[in-house]
Amino acid sequence: MKELIYHRQFLPAMQTFAEKTAVIDGSYRASFEVHGKRVLCLADAMRRTLGLARGDRFAVMAANCHEYLELYHAAYLGAGIINPLNLRLAGKELEYIVEDSGTGIVFVDAHFAQVFDDAMRLGESSGAIRQVVLMGPGDGPCDLGYEDLLASGEPVVPKEPEEEDPVVLMYTGGTTGLPKGVLVTQRAEILNCYHAGMVLGRFKPSEVSLLQTPIFHAASMVSLLATTGCGGTQVLVPMFEPGEVIRLIEEHRVTLTMMVPTMIAMMVNHPAFAPERIASLESLTYGASPMPAELLDRLLAMLPDLELNQGYGMTESASVLTFNGPDHHRPDDPRLRSVGRPVPGVELSIQNEGGEILPTGETGEVCAKGGNLMSEYWHKPEATAEAFRGGWYHTGDAGYLDDEGFLFLVDRVKDMIISGGENVYSVEVENAISGHPAVDEVAVIGVPHELWGEQVHAVVVRKTGAEVSEAEVIEYARSSIAGYKVPKSVEFRDEPLPLSGAMKVLKRALRDPYWKDHEASI
Amino acid sequence: MKELIYHRQFLPAMQTFAEKTAVIDGSYRASFEVHGKRVLCLADAMRRTLGLARGDRFAVMAANCHEYLELYHAAYLGAGIINPLNLRLAGKELEYIVEDSGTGIVFVDAHFAQVFDDAMRLGESSGAIRQVVLMGPGDGPCDLGYEDLLASGEPVVPKEPEEEDPVVLMYTGGTTGLPKGVLVTQRAEILNCYHAGMVLGRFKPSEVSLLQTPIFHAASMVSLLATTGCGGTQVLVPMFEPGEVIRLIEEHRVTLTMMVPTMIAMMVNHPAFAPERIASLESLTYGASPMPAELLDRLLAMLPDLELNQGYGMTESASVLTFNGPDHHRPDDPRLRSVGRPVPGVELSIQNEGGEILPTGETGEVCAKGGNLMSEYWHKPEATAEAFRGGWYHTGDAGYLDDEGFLFLVDRVKDMIISGGENVYSVEVENAISGHPAVDEVAVIGVPHELWGEQVHAVVVRKTGAEVSEAEVIEYARSSIAGYKVPKSVEFRDEPLPLSGAMKVLKRALRDPYWKDHEASI
Repeated sequence: MKELIYHRQFLPAMQTFAEKTAVIDGSYRASFEVHGKRVLCLADAMRRTLGLARGDRFAVMAANCHEYLELYHAAYLGAGIINPLNLRLAGKELEYIVEDSGTGIVFVDAHFAQVFDDAMRLGESSGAIRQVVLMGPGDGPCDLGYEDLLASGEPVVPKEPEEEDPVVLMYTGGTTGLPKGVLVTQRAEILNCYHAGMVLGRFKPSEVSLLQTPIFHAASMVSLLATTGCGGTQVLVPMFEPGEVIRLIEEHRVTLTMMVPTMIAMMVNHPAFAPERIASLESLTYGASPMPAELLDRLLAMLPDLELNQGYGMTESASVLTFNGPDHHRPDDPRLRSVGRPVPGVELSIQNEGGEILPTGETGEVCAKGGNLMSEYWHKPEATAEAFRGGWYHTGDAGYLDDEGFLFLVDRVKDMIISGGENVYSVEVENAISGHPAVDEVAVIGVPHELWGEQVHAVVVRKTGAEVSEAEVIEYARSSIAGYKVPKSVEFRDEPLPLSGAMKVLKRALRDPYWKDHEASI
Repeated sequence: MKELIYHRQFLPAMQTFAEKTAVIDGSYRASFEVHGKRVLCLADAMRRTLGLARGDRFAVMAANCHEYLELYHAAYLGAGIINPLNLRLAGKELEYIVEDSGTGIVFVDAHFAQVFDDAMRLGESSGAIRQVVLMGPGDGPCDLGYEDLLASGEPVVPKEPEEEDPVVLMYTGGTTGLPKGVLVTQRAEILNCYHAGMVLGRFKPSEVSLLQTPIFHAASMVSLLATTGCGGTQVLVPMFEPGEVIRLIEEHRVTLTMMVPTMIAMMVNHPAFAPERIASLESLTYGASPMPAELLDRLLAMLPDLELNQGYGMTESASVLTFNGPDHHRPDDPRLRSVGRPVPGVELSIQNEGGEILPTGETGEVCAKGGNLMSEYWHKPEATAEAFRGGWYHTGDAGYLDDEGFLFLVDRVKDMIISGGENVYSVEVENAISGHPAVDEVAVIGVPHELWGEQVHAVVVRKTGAEVSEAEVIEYARSSIAGYKVPKSVEFRDEPLPLSGAMKVLKRALRDPYWKDHEASI
C-alpha cells in the first residue's frame, strides 16, 4: 500500500500553496514552491551524487535550520533513512552510533563539523564514512558544500516508497545505558500525525508553527511533517534561546509551538518576556517531562486563552501516545497532573512485571499498542522482542490509569528506588520537595545502602541567595509523603542539574558517582 | 497489518468509558459497557447461530435505531460485510441488490419487513435468503427475533480482521442507471475517520452527536464509527422529523450533527423552531448537496457561533474528500460557495475527458486519490477500472480548483446539458432561478431537441399561493446568466420534486419521460 507515505501530503502542498511561505529561518524565507523544488533537487542529488539507495542511512548533526528541514523532507520522499544525531553526543557515543547505524554520509553544520571530526579522529571506525557534507555558512573539515550538492540535483519527483519502508533511525536519548537505534516507518509517522492531529485539530494552512524543540528529537516530528504537509508555515530557531523565541513569536505571529517545561520556564522568566509579546500563540503543547505545578499556574494566570496540551510519548512511539487537553488545564482540576488519554489509534494498558494487565488505579509499567510504534530497535532483535513482549510495547514508565482512562505517570521504571523492599517513585519525592520556597531544582535518586539496598537521596539546587539546610528539606518532605519515601540524605549543588539533549535531568550522571564501586543500579 | 481496524477503537472505548452513555434511542439508553456487550454477543450469534463467516454479506433495511448501530459495529468487529439498504428501494431494485450482493441474511424492522417481503415475493431470486431477522418491536414475516438472536451469543472478543478485509458493501444511490455495490475495507473507513477528524477536531468523549442522516447513507459513517470509538454519545432518531430533531437537540444537549441542506431548511422552517432550542450545537456539518445561499445566510444570522463545515464526498470515498470550514462561512466570503479543500490524506485533480490534469480555474471532472477510497465496485472489474482510470478515482462531478486549492463544484458530469455544442451546468441555471421570490424548488435538466441535441428545461415548484409564469422565470434567469444557459421551457409542478433516498433531486426521474422515445441521455 502506498497511501500512508509523505509523498501524498508534501507534493500536493507544494502545488496548492506554491506562493505561500513554507519556511522562515532567520533571514531565509522559502515559498512552498521554492522549498519543494529544493527538497526534490536534494533528494535527487542524494541518490545520484552521493549514491544513497533505498534503505541506506545518512546522519545529520546540526542546529535547527532550513537545510535540516529539507533533509528530513528528502528522507520522507525516499532519499534514505535519516539518522538525526543528538547534539549533546560526543566522543565514544557519537562514534558508536555512526558505527552501529552503518551511516556512510553525514551532514553537519559548521559548528558540529568540528565536533564530529574530533569524535571520528579519536575513534577507529570512521572508515565507514564516505562523505561529510557541510550545511549552511562557515567552514569545516568537510568534503562537499550543501548548496553545491543541491545544485547537482534536478527537481524530479522521486519514486514512491512503500508504507513499510523505514525512514527515520533515531537513537534514544541515552539516559540509561548505550543508545539504541529506533527504526520508524513512513506509515508509523503518518499515522502518528493523524492520531495527534485528530486531538490537536491544528494542522491547517493558517497555522504558523515555531519549531524550537531540536529537530533531532522525536517531539519535533509531528510539526516537521504535518505543518508543511497541511500548508502551514514553519519558523525555525537554531537553538532554543528564550529572548529569540519571544522575538520570533511576536514578529511572525506564531500560532502554535511545542516546548518542554524547562524551556517554558526560561521563556517566562526572561527579562524581555511580556504576555502580550506572545499573544498570537493559540496552542502550546508541552511534554518530554512533567510541568512543575508552580509554572503551570503562572502560565495559566498570564495567558488564560492559550490552549495547553500536554503530550506524552517517546522516540519509540514516533512520537505521541497521549494528550491532555485544554479542558483539564485548570488549576483546580485533579487531572491537571495527568498526561491525558491515549490519542485515537493508540491503546494503553498498565502491566505488572509478569505481564498481567492491572486494574484501574494500580501502578505498573505503561504499555502501548498502535500503528505509530517503531518497527524495531536497529539490529537488536532481542531488545525489540523484550520491548514488545506480549504484543505490547513496554515504555519503561511507571504510571496508572484513572476511571476514565487518564494516565498519571509516576516515574521511569528505572528511576524507581527500591528501598527496604518498598517501591519509591523518585518523581513523587521530587514533587514533595520542589514546593519549598528555597528550592530551585531537585532530583531524587537511589544511592547504595548496605541494609536497604537503596537509600532515597535528594540533589538540590537552591534559588540564588536562598538558604535551606538538609534537615529542613527532609522535614519539609515529611509533611507530605510517607516516612519510607522521605530522603535520608540531601546534597546541595551550586550549578544547574545536568540535562540530556532532550533537556531531561540526566539521573544516570547523578547516580554514577555513587554506584561506581557497586554493581549497576537496576 | 492490523492497526487500522475498528477493534482498536471500539474495545478500548468500551473499557475506558464503561459507565458513560454510549447510545440514546428514544427511551433506550445503553452505557458503553452494555452497548459493547450487546455488540460482542451479536457478533458471536451472527457467527454461531446464523453461520456468517468472514466475507459473507448481510443486509439491513431499517430506520435508524440502536439495533442498526449494533449491527454496524458488529460488522466492524468482523461479523460479516454489512450491506445497508437504501430505504427508498422497492421491488425490482431491492431484488437486484439482494441478488447482486449474494446476501443470505437480512435484518429488517417491522415496517421494512413487509416492504422487503413484498419485493422478494414479486421476484424469483429470494431463494438465496436464508434467514430474515426482525429488529425492534412489532411483527413481520420473519424467521427470528433480534433479541432472541442476541441472547444466543456470548460476549467474546472476536478474532481480529485484517485491515484489507472488506466490511461495508453499500449500493450507490441509483440517481443514474442500476445501483453498483461499493466495497469498503476496514482500513479505508478508519482512514476516512482520521482524515475527517483532523479537520473537524470533534471526536472527543465530551461530544454528543445526533445521528439523523440515515444509517444506510455513507454520510453517517464517520459519526457511526468515530463518535463511539472516541467515547462520545450517539443520539439516534428513527427517521428525520424536524420537530423531533429540535426536541432531541434540546433535551440531550447535542453538540454536533450532520444534515443535508433540505433537512436544515425543514428544521429552521418548523413552527417549533427557535434558535435557543438548538443552542447546545457547536458543530453542524452539512453536505450531500449544495446549500442554497438564502438558507445559509439565514442560518448564519441566527446562530453566529455555530461551526459550519461543508463536507463533500460520496459512497466511493467512504465518505469524505473535502471540508470547507467555519473560516469561510461568512456571507461575504467568496469561498462560501466552495466545498473546501481536500482533507489530509486526500489528493484532488481536475481532469478533462482525455485524463489530462487541468490547470487552476478550469472546469473538468473532479478526481481523487486517498486511502479512504473504495476497493472496488462489487464484482464489476470493468466499472472499477473505468472509475479508477489513470490511478485516479473519477467522481463524476464537474468542478474547478481555485488558486489555493478550494474546490468549487459545478455539476454532476451526467447532469451537464450539452446544448448546441455548449456545456451548460444545470446547477448554475438552478441558482439563477432559485432566487425568484415565487420559486420554492427548481431542477434543470436537458430535454431532447432536434437541432441542438439538448434543450435547457426547468422544472419549478411554486411557493404556496405564489404566481409566476414561464416567461417570467425565463426573463428572471436571463438577468444573471448567458443566453445559451437560459431555459427555453419551464414546467410547473404542484407536488414536491422527487428525491432519492439521500434526499437529492432524482433528475433521472424528471428526465426519463422526455427521453423514453430517444436514445439515452449522455
